[in-house]
Amino acid sequence: MFQFKIALCQLSVTSDKERNIAHAREAIEEAAGKGAQLILLPEIWNSPYSNDSFPVYAEEIDADKSPSTAMLSELSRSLKITIIGGSIPERSGDRLYNTCCVFGADGKLKAKHRKIHLFDIDIPGQMTFKESKTLTAGETPTIVDTDVGRIGIGICYDIRFQELAAIYAARGAHLLCYPGAFNMTTGPLHWELLQRARAADCQLYVATCSPARDSNSSYVAWGHSTLVGPFGEIIVTTDHDEAIVISEIDYSLIEQRRANLPFQKQRRGDLYQLVDVHRLNSTRTSIAGNSAANDSCKTCLSAIAAGSTFSVVAVAIGSKKSFRSSSSSRSSSERKLKPVETSNDLKKEDSDSADAVPVKREVNRCSGCRRKVGLTGFRVDVASSSAPIIIIPTGMIAARTTRPLDDRPLQGKIRWLR
Amino acid sequence: MFQFKIALCQLSVTSDKERNIAHAREAIEEAAGKGAQLILLPEIWNSPYSNDSFPVYAEEIDADKSPSTAMLSELSRSLKITIIGGSIPERSGDRLYNTCCVFGADGKLKAKHRKIHLFDIDIPGQMTFKESKTLTAGETPTIVDTDVGRIGIGICYDIRFQELAAIYAARGAHLLCYPGAFNMTTGPLHWELLQRARAADCQLYVATCSPARDSNSSYVAWGHSTLVGPFGEIIVTTDHDEAIVISEIDYSLIEQRRANLPFQKQRRGDLYQLVDVHRLNSTRTSIAGNSAANDSCKTCLSAIAAGSTFSVVAVAIGSKKSFRSSSSSRSSSERKLKPVETSNDLKKEDSDSADAVPVKREVNRCSGCRRKVGLTGFRVDVASSSAPIIIIPTGMIAARTTRPLDDRPLQGKIRWLR
Repeated sequence: MFQFKIALCQLSVTSDKERNIAHAREAIEEAAGKGAQLILLPEIWNSPYSNDSFPVYAEEIDADKSPSTAMLSELSRSLKITIIGGSIPERSGDRLYNTCCVFGADGKLKAKHRKIHLFDIDIPGQMTFKESKTLTAGETPTIVDTDVGRIGIGICYDIRFQELAAIYAARGAHLLCYPGAFNMTTGPLHWELLQRARAADCQLYVATCSPARDSNSSYVAWGHSTLVGPFGEIIVTTDHDEAIVISEIDYSLIEQRRANLPFQKQRRGDLYQLVDVHRLNSTRTSIAGNSAANDSCKTCLSAIAAGSTFSVVAVAIGSKKSFRSSSSSRSSSERKLKPVETSNDLKKEDSDSADAVPVKREVNRCSGCRRKVGLTGFRVDVASSSAPIIIIPTGMIAARTTRPLDDRPLQGKIRWLR
Repeated sequence: MFQFKIALCQLSVTSDKERNIAHAREAIEEAAGKGAQLILLPEIWNSPYSNDSFPVYAEEIDADKSPSTAMLSELSRSLKITIIGGSIPERSGDRLYNTCCVFGADGKLKAKHRKIHLFDIDIPGQMTFKESKTLTAGETPTIVDTDVGRIGIGICYDIRFQELAAIYAARGAHLLCYPGAFNMTTGPLHWELLQRARAADCQLYVATCSPARDSNSSYVAWGHSTLVGPFGEIIVTTDHDEAIVISEIDYSLIEQRRANLPFQKQRRGDLYQLVDVHRLNSTRTSIAGNSAANDSCKTCLSAIAAGSTFSVVAVAIGSKKSFRSSSSSRSSSERKLKPVETSNDLKKEDSDSADAVPVKREVNRCSGCRRKVGLTGFRVDVASSSAPIIIIPTGMIAARTTRPLDDRPLQGKIRWLR
C-alpha cells in the first residue's frame, strides 16, 4: 500500500473513564468515516495523567479485563482499520505499565508496547514528574507489520532517545508513532524539534498524538499532534484544542528522500555502529531484515527492494584477523534462485579456509505485500564457537559469525526476487 | 573554564585566495579584539566551494606548505586564542581532503579533522553535488581538548550523522563545532533543525559557521551561522550576510540540563548500544573516559565529576553466562586513594572464580583543569582470550573484558578524586 489516510485524534481526557472511552469511540468512528485507515490516539487517553490516577484507572489487558482496549478491538474489526491505541495504564500482576496496543483491521491485538523510557525529569520550578514512582518500564522495542506499513511504536519520552528510532528505521519501519503528552515546559522546547529530527535523521514518517490541553488538570498537555514527513517537514499539525487531524501518507516519498540523501550508504560503520541488542541476541539473526533500512519492495514499497546492493563491514571482536568477501555475482542466474538455498556464496580472498564464514542464502517475505523474496547475498549463522564476528550493514550490527576474521570490509549484494 | 566568548566568523569568500586569507585575518583580529577566546571559521573559507576549485586551492598542511593555516597558527599564538579553522581543501600525497585545523592558544596545531561524510546528494532540479568526485573522506572522528573545553569537530555533512555527535558526547565533549556550507535547498530544510537536534539530544553546545551568501557563486551558501545551547535553544544566530557573531558560552548549563533531563542514566543499554569503533579497538580502552558522558569535574566542569555514580551493563558476545559486580564501597577511604591503584575491586556474586573479570582502578586527568583524578570504579583490561564481554555504560560500549559472563547488569561506582 503506497498511500492512505492517517487520523490523529487529539482527545480531551477527563476523570470519567466511561466518558473517555465513549468519547474515543466517537472520534474513531468520525475519523474512519472520513476515510482514515490508520488512527492514532493520545498517550493515557482513558485516565488523567498522574501517578495517583494510574493505579486507579489501570486495566488488565492480558487478562482480557480491559474495556478500553476491547472498544479498540471492536472498532478496528467493524471499521476495518488499524488502530494505534495511544496508551493506557496497564496492570500486569503487581506492576503497572504505560502501554500502547495496536489492533489490526481484523480486530486482533497485533502488538503491545510498554513505554521503555519512563518520564522522570526535574526542571525545578517548571516541571517535575517521576513516572517511575508508579510505573515499570517495558523491556522491548515494538515494531509491527500492519495493513498500512511497518510501524515502530514509542510512547512520549521514548521519542527523546534517538537510538530507538534508529533501530526501528533499521528494521524497516515506514512510520514511527509516538502517542505523547509533552507539557507546557517541554512542549514548546522540544516537541516539534524531536519529531522533525527523528523523521529527518531516519528518513521516514513520524506521527504524534497528544491529549487536548486542559488548563485545569494537574498535568497540562501541550497538544500539537503532528504528522512529519521523511525530510523532517511538517505535513499537518494542530494547536492545543481537541481535534481530529487527518492527512494523506505516501510511502513512495520515503524511497525518494533516501535516494536524494542516501544516508544509509553513507554511514560510517567503520567508525560507529548502533547495536540492536534484541536482534543481536536472536537465534536467527540475519542480514535480510536489515536490508530493510536501505530499500523497499518494488511491489508495495515495503522495506525491501529488488536488485539493491549494500555494504557490510565485518568487525572482529577479540581478534584482529581479517577477510574480505563478495557475493558471486551471477546477475542473470540470480533470478532463477529456488526458494531455499544453502549454497555458500562466499568468495574468500585471503589465506586459509579456516577463516571462512558460513554464508547462506535464505528466503524471506516482504514485510508489506508478504510475497516471498529471495536473498542472494549473505546470511551468516550464529554458532557457539569462539571469537564471533559482528556483521554491520551500514552502521547497524545485524548478525554475528562464528570465526575470527579481520576488520576489512565485507561487501555483498542483496537481491530480492518475487 | 566555565564561561568564555565564542565568535562565529561568517566570512565572504571570493576566488582570490590571498584576499580570503587577509580577510579572515581581519575578522579573527576583530573578534579577538571583542573578547572572543574561541573563533570558528566557515567551511572552505579560502577557496570557492566547487570540485573545480578544490585541487587548485588545496594546500599541503602536513608539509607546512599552507599559507592559510600558517595565518591561523600565527594569530592563535599572538592573540592567545583557540581557533577552529573552518575548513580548507587539503592536499596530502595524491589525495584531497576537506580539512579543519584546530590551533591552541600557543599557536600549535592541536587537531586536524578531515570531513568524514562526503557531501554526495542528488535532489533533482534543486541540488546535486558530489564531493567524492574530487575529495577523499577522513578516517577518524576528531575530539580535542582546548583551553575552552573539549570540542568535537564535524564538517557540514558530518552533522547529518547523529552517531558522530553521540560519540563525541560520550567522549565528554562540551561543544560541537561544525563549519558548514549548507545551500539554498538543504539550508532552509535542515540547517537549524540538525544543529538544534544534536544539541538537544546530546545536551551540549553546538556552534556552526557558514560562509556568507554570494548569490553569484556556483554554490550559494545558506549562511545563518548559529550557536545552540544544551536544551537545543538558539542562543545567537544571523542571517546570510557577512557577520561576526559573538556570544557567551557557559558550560555550567550543560551540567544543569543533564540534571534536568538525565538521559545518560535513562538510556537503555540493554536494548541498544552505540559502538565507538576506534575506542573499542584501542588497546587501553577504559570506562574512565566514558564517565565523561555523565558528569563534569567540579573544579572546572570538564567532563568528569567527584562522587558520581553510573551503571554498567555487561553483554556477553558469544556466551549466555552471567555475573554481577559492584565496587567495594568504601566511601570515606576512597578519598585516600593513591594515584595508581591496581587492587581488584570486583565483588563476584556468582559461581566459580573462572568467570571473574579483571577490574582495576586507574588514575586519569580531568580533561579540563588537568588535575589528577582517581577512578575507584571499573577498569577492564582487554585481553586476547576468547568470548569477550562488552561493557556498556548507559548505552555506550566502552570496553571489553576477557571472560564469558552473562547479561545481567554490572553496576559500579566511579569516584573522581582531586
